[in-house]
Amino acid sequence: MTPTLGARIKAEVEDWARFSTEEGRLTRLFLSPEHAQVAEAVMAAMTAAGMRARIDAIGNVVGRYEGETPGAPALLTGSHVDTVRDAGPYDGNLGVALPIACIGELNGRGKRLPFAVEVIAFGDEEGVRFPTVLSGSRAVAGTFDPAALAVRDVDGTTLEDSLRAFGCQPGNIPAEARRPTDVIGFIEVHIEQGPVLEREGLPVGIVTAISGASRFRVSVQGMAGHAGTVPMAARQDALAGAAEMVLAIERRAKGHEALVATVGRIAADPGAVNVIPGRVDFTLDIRAPADAVRRQAIADVQTEVHAIAQRRGLTVTLEEFHSQDAVVCDPRLMQALEASVARCGHRVCRLPSGAGHDAMAVAALCPMAMLFLRCGGGISHNPAESITADDVDAAARVFLDFLEAGLPLPAPSKD
Amino acid sequence: MTPTLGARIKAEVEDWARFSTEEGRLTRLFLSPEHAQVAEAVMAAMTAAGMRARIDAIGNVVGRYEGETPGAPALLTGSHVDTVRDAGPYDGNLGVALPIACIGELNGRGKRLPFAVEVIAFGDEEGVRFPTVLSGSRAVAGTFDPAALAVRDVDGTTLEDSLRAFGCQPGNIPAEARRPTDVIGFIEVHIEQGPVLEREGLPVGIVTAISGASRFRVSVQGMAGHAGTVPMAARQDALAGAAEMVLAIERRAKGHEALVATVGRIAADPGAVNVIPGRVDFTLDIRAPADAVRRQAIADVQTEVHAIAQRRGLTVTLEEFHSQDAVVCDPRLMQALEASVARCGHRVCRLPSGAGHDAMAVAALCPMAMLFLRCGGGISHNPAESITADDVDAAARVFLDFLEAGLPLPAPSKD
Repeated sequence: MTPTLGARIKAEVEDWARFSTEEGRLTRLFLSPEHAQVAEAVMAAMTAAGMRARIDAIGNVVGRYEGETPGAPALLTGSHVDTVRDAGPYDGNLGVALPIACIGELNGRGKRLPFAVEVIAFGDEEGVRFPTVLSGSRAVAGTFDPAALAVRDVDGTTLEDSLRAFGCQPGNIPAEARRPTDVIGFIEVHIEQGPVLEREGLPVGIVTAISGASRFRVSVQGMAGHAGTVPMAARQDALAGAAEMVLAIERRAKGHEALVATVGRIAADPGAVNVIPGRVDFTLDIRAPADAVRRQAIADVQTEVHAIAQRRGLTVTLEEFHSQDAVVCDPRLMQALEASVARCGHRVCRLPSGAGHDAMAVAALCPMAMLFLRCGGGISHNPAESITADDVDAAARVFLDFLEAGLPLPAPSKD
Repeated sequence: MTPTLGARIKAEVEDWARFSTEEGRLTRLFLSPEHAQVAEAVMAAMTAAGMRARIDAIGNVVGRYEGETPGAPALLTGSHVDTVRDAGPYDGNLGVALPIACIGELNGRGKRLPFAVEVIAFGDEEGVRFPTVLSGSRAVAGTFDPAALAVRDVDGTTLEDSLRAFGCQPGNIPAEARRPTDVIGFIEVHIEQGPVLEREGLPVGIVTAISGASRFRVSVQGMAGHAGTVPMAARQDALAGAAEMVLAIERRAKGHEALVATVGRIAADPGAVNVIPGRVDFTLDIRAPADAVRRQAIADVQTEVHAIAQRRGLTVTLEEFHSQDAVVCDPRLMQALEASVARCGHRVCRLPSGAGHDAMAVAALCPMAMLFLRCGGGISHNPAESITADDVDAAARVFLDFLEAGLPLPAPSKD
């Protein structure tokens, strides 16, 4: 029995997982030797699918499938091939292998589209090696800051030297920026990395927006004391106050459907079994697909934690150390994807992306949309990440339908 | 103007603070060279006060002031001269200097009592150097376990070798155990290390019991997940559950006057700003002067944390790693101390000791009571520890009155 398109895509992505720095688990950092290996495999797949493939000045693998008219504006698609440490095989990589395989299908039928398609395998989405992130997709969007070439990895190697060692010409990065007139839009296929599609019983979903995110360091100051000698009524216990804040944050996030808030780290000082905590530090990560929802939630949380601190004789400070506004998906591209989902026989499910993606950066260049694929238990960034061949097949059929239906060519330029 | 008795005692204790391992802060570990130096100063003070002084087989400094009849049963008193790291000067040391100065007063007047008084400067109350604690007071009480001689400090030196280097004969430790017929009781004077007397506006208070204490490691298991992609309703957030438990513990302890419960350490795993905690570990320290109160609170907390875990789809385990029953003070000694407090013009205040003391160990030998002295802000185990000369004077006057009033000689033996 011939394997399905989905089974072949899944097998290819799993095969790429052997390009890893670490024995027995998948870790593939930007511009590493394993990145070079996967880039070679991606180029081979692109060539086999009838595409012209190259590695660009920032280490992206770019494959172009010409349309009916050579040099026509291109639909961009793709995702990343770098990984976190001890990663799952599908995060990013699926969004590279799937469109290549779909182009291969068209090419096998001798089919050309009214537009070109470019598949891009970005190299720096996870931001694990360097203190940069999305440098590949930013270069394509024309928003890459050349100052980032000077950043160093833990071994002290600069991004610039690493690019040269990879065979790239960093001086050519500005030339990689696409002209808005040369691109139609960007579609990223990605595993959901969350549990919504699984709970909805659907193989695919349409992303509405990549949520904005704000991150805070919260510090609660009370009074340390002996766990045995200070009566409860005389305490200024920073941890009891922080606990009340954690619950207030959870309660506030539960009050709005698409809002999420997470306290991921917490530490009590001095941190001894027999000492009342005098200080507690915790982090707050708060996200929503609508910026106004996120901002209102932040304001409410700030009010609430200050009220808790005041009631308990504590002080609290919140320091924002990261803020990224939401990136909204293009309505016409979403509608076109939804039409394909419906034609392929699936109920249409819209959901936000709580995680960041290369699509965030490319959105500065052109209209953007994302197709999410169900993953087991919502688990990602973990070797237990899982998908099924049937779901990959469903996603590939939707993507092919989307390509062949003819795009609702949006306005070519945003400026 | 001649300084008061209290001012002289306070100055002496502060002088002893120079015997420290660390420049600029007080750290004096069991059997260290600085312990030897303070022992010499204590012996000199004892000798000056008309006592016969020696260092015993476990490194205690023992000074004896004979009564009207030489060899009469002795009232034991004293406290410890070892310290925590970066200690305050008064913890322990005050309870050595104060009775020596009081004996000096009696001796200056040529006054002998119907009983002997022995002041003991114990060397191992804080348990900082070796994984033992109260070895000095246990040796006196006859409960020292010789197996403890084999324990080692961080440098690998055994307690036995350290004792020999200090000039002690570890083989003579069993002979240090007092016969119950030779002792009347034990009184320990100590700073409160809590805020109660300060809030009551009183220089001294009478301890009712040294609270029993239980300590637990609590582990909450949920499901880690991406902070951006898992909706609030789908989370099994171990930290949100732990926060609810921390508040339940606080609420339960507030429900009983003399009960205290403390969560002093907490850690979330994996502990990243953008990951929902899959596991949280925290410690629980719970104390009460009545064992039944403590046990009921533990049972209630266990019920409550399991209920919280169940509601949230989490699991929780509690592992007890320390349990010490309360040690109740002797009613007749307490009454005698209270009479002295009243005669000295102070309102009588009874309070539990939430912290452990050498008196806990000596209670295995004979009736025991403790006199607490107000300290600033309840702060102890900290260089900011503070007391006033007036309060020390008040405590010394109470102690002198107690000695001169003639003791309500309790039954000499507990067996």
